[in-house]
Amino acid sequence: MAIRVGIIGYGNLAKGVESEIRKNPDMELKGIFTRRDPSSITTRTEGVSVYNVSAIKDMKDDFDVMIICGGSATDLPEQTKEYAKYFNVIDSFDTHAKIPEHYAAVDASAKAAKKVAVISCGWDPGMFSLNRLYGNCILADGEDYTFWGKGVSQGHSDAIRRVPGVKNGKQYTIPVPEALQKVRSGEAPVLSTREKHTRECFVVAEEGADKALIEKTIKEMPNYFADYDTTVHFISEEEFLRDHSRINHGGFVIRSGRTGFDNENKHVIEYSLKLDSNPEFTASVLIAYARAAVRLEAKSDFGCKTVFDIAPALLSPLSGEELRAKML
Amino acid sequence: MAIRVGIIGYGNLAKGVESEIRKNPDMELKGIFTRRDPSSITTRTEGVSVYNVSAIKDMKDDFDVMIICGGSATDLPEQTKEYAKYFNVIDSFDTHAKIPEHYAAVDASAKAAKKVAVISCGWDPGMFSLNRLYGNCILADGEDYTFWGKGVSQGHSDAIRRVPGVKNGKQYTIPVPEALQKVRSGEAPVLSTREKHTRECFVVAEEGADKALIEKTIKEMPNYFADYDTTVHFISEEEFLRDHSRINHGGFVIRSGRTGFDNENKHVIEYSLKLDSNPEFTASVLIAYARAAVRLEAKSDFGCKTVFDIAPALLSPLSGEELRAKML
Repeated sequence: MAIRVGIIGYGNLAKGVESEIRKNPDMELKGIFTRRDPSSITTRTEGVSVYNVSAIKDMKDDFDVMIICGGSATDLPEQTKEYAKYFNVIDSFDTHAKIPEHYAAVDASAKAAKKVAVISCGWDPGMFSLNRLYGNCILADGEDYTFWGKGVSQGHSDAIRRVPGVKNGKQYTIPVPEALQKVRSGEAPVLSTREKHTRECFVVAEEGADKALIEKTIKEMPNYFADYDTTVHFISEEEFLRDHSRINHGGFVIRSGRTGFDNENKHVIEYSLKLDSNPEFTASVLIAYARAAVRLEAKSDFGCKTVFDIAPALLSPLSGEELRAKML
Repeated sequence: MAIRVGIIGYGNLAKGVESEIRKNPDMELKGIFTRRDPSSITTRTEGVSVYNVSAIKDMKDDFDVMIICGGSATDLPEQTKEYAKYFNVIDSFDTHAKIPEHYAAVDASAKAAKKVAVISCGWDPGMFSLNRLYGNCILADGEDYTFWGKGVSQGHSDAIRRVPGVKNGKQYTIPVPEALQKVRSGEAPVLSTREKHTRECFVVAEEGADKALIEKTIKEMPNYFADYDTTVHFISEEEFLRDHSRINHGGFVIRSGRTGFDNENKHVIEYSLKLDSNPEFTASVLIAYARAAVRLEAKSDFGCKTVFDIAPALLSPLSGEELRAKML
């Protein structure tokens, strides 16, 4: 029987789950839960039911796992611990500083309900975290580097759009090629914030707005832009819609280190992602870990988990024998 | 108390374990076991005992894990299943076609003895396998590519040295840059053996040997060279020793795939290694998984395992809390 999956929310990430679940024949999208009026939602998947989220508790036995697609700021801190009382759940909580608190709350709910909850899943946190961990365990004497981009930062794009006179805006985070090159060479450089990434902004100004002031306001914005070399391009609305509507992203996790009695040998481990669609890739990771959550429940291994706690074989629809034969 | 580690064998890989274990403060090298006369062996680590392997069974309680550093052709098929009767063990068995058989034999021994055995650990099989698995689970609709090099192939170097008139020889496997580029672009090319790798040979000929014949013999050798574009360089013994004594290696595992309702978005996941010392890096992987083997035994999770079966957190000396705070 296929794994019965529910989605909570219907934004970009949820739509990514909806499209990618079809690539996994062992899983079935059984329902979408929304805070909006269900009749206001048109899904892309034929025959899938849309419910108001208030009805979710009555469907405890109808779903094997819920993929929670809310935001980290206000949704997930409430939703994941709540729905873990009734379902196996998975989220992409990415507020790094608040992970311990989120973990503790979700773990308590899931353990009491004998359910499995996977938190902070996706690519960062997620696949990037895994590569930091593997890299550290293998090259015990070494340095870690994470570069993001080239890609769209939602937070920085939002910050641009809050500047007076800005009609629309998008920000790309770009790794500095020279910094990447130094890291790859294994020379273990110490890099400042400014040396690692640049920020490129594309802005549509309102008619009559003071462009020089907008540019200055963006470039001097503390936390977001002040510590970076930032460029601002003013473009037309037409150009903006034509060239800047994708949500691409990516990045690099690099571990460099040394081995040998005299540390004479250098090693570089590099993991990189080049993603046309950040939400669809994140959704794809969530789906694989949703499969693992169901299997962990079957093994009575309840509670809150992260990508660190989950054996890779649990992500795959293939058996142990098949995996050893095909992928080892 | 530190994890008490034994090494079986004392070749290049074992020496790598000896040097790298010192980078792991929670582990202690307690003994080296050899088939040779122990007095003939000079270790680099002060105070470590060297035993003849015949004495190993009497030391059942003195070691938490044995890292078996034999060869895959004849040593490991005998050693791993035998020593799993007495110890947690780990090996780097890399004869892909015989993994199912090896797994079954080792699993039976380890389960009967309530021990943990990790087989086929290192980078390929090992870290490359993990990346093939993660990539496949995330991008269900996609293609896999593995490139090796630039690096020394031991098997091909041995084959060169068996050619009459060859005094010494080394073979480097080199990925074809254009093929790598095509794969990275996400265009999912179908590549022949010849299109993926070239082979470069450095040969020291015996005095008076027929170099043209040596070159022809190498280039036409079935399985090893006939399917590749191979270049042969004749060099002096002096140059050989100066420039070709390292055992560097590396490679790339790439998964490209598509997402979206119309498969409109492309994604590329790339994992690469650039290693100055193949045996020291492999040893570093074995050490991390040796730690995991001891922890699995403590959880009574006995039997044969591969990298697929082991949750990443088990590799690290850090606690779950520390990992979530520092690396997630």
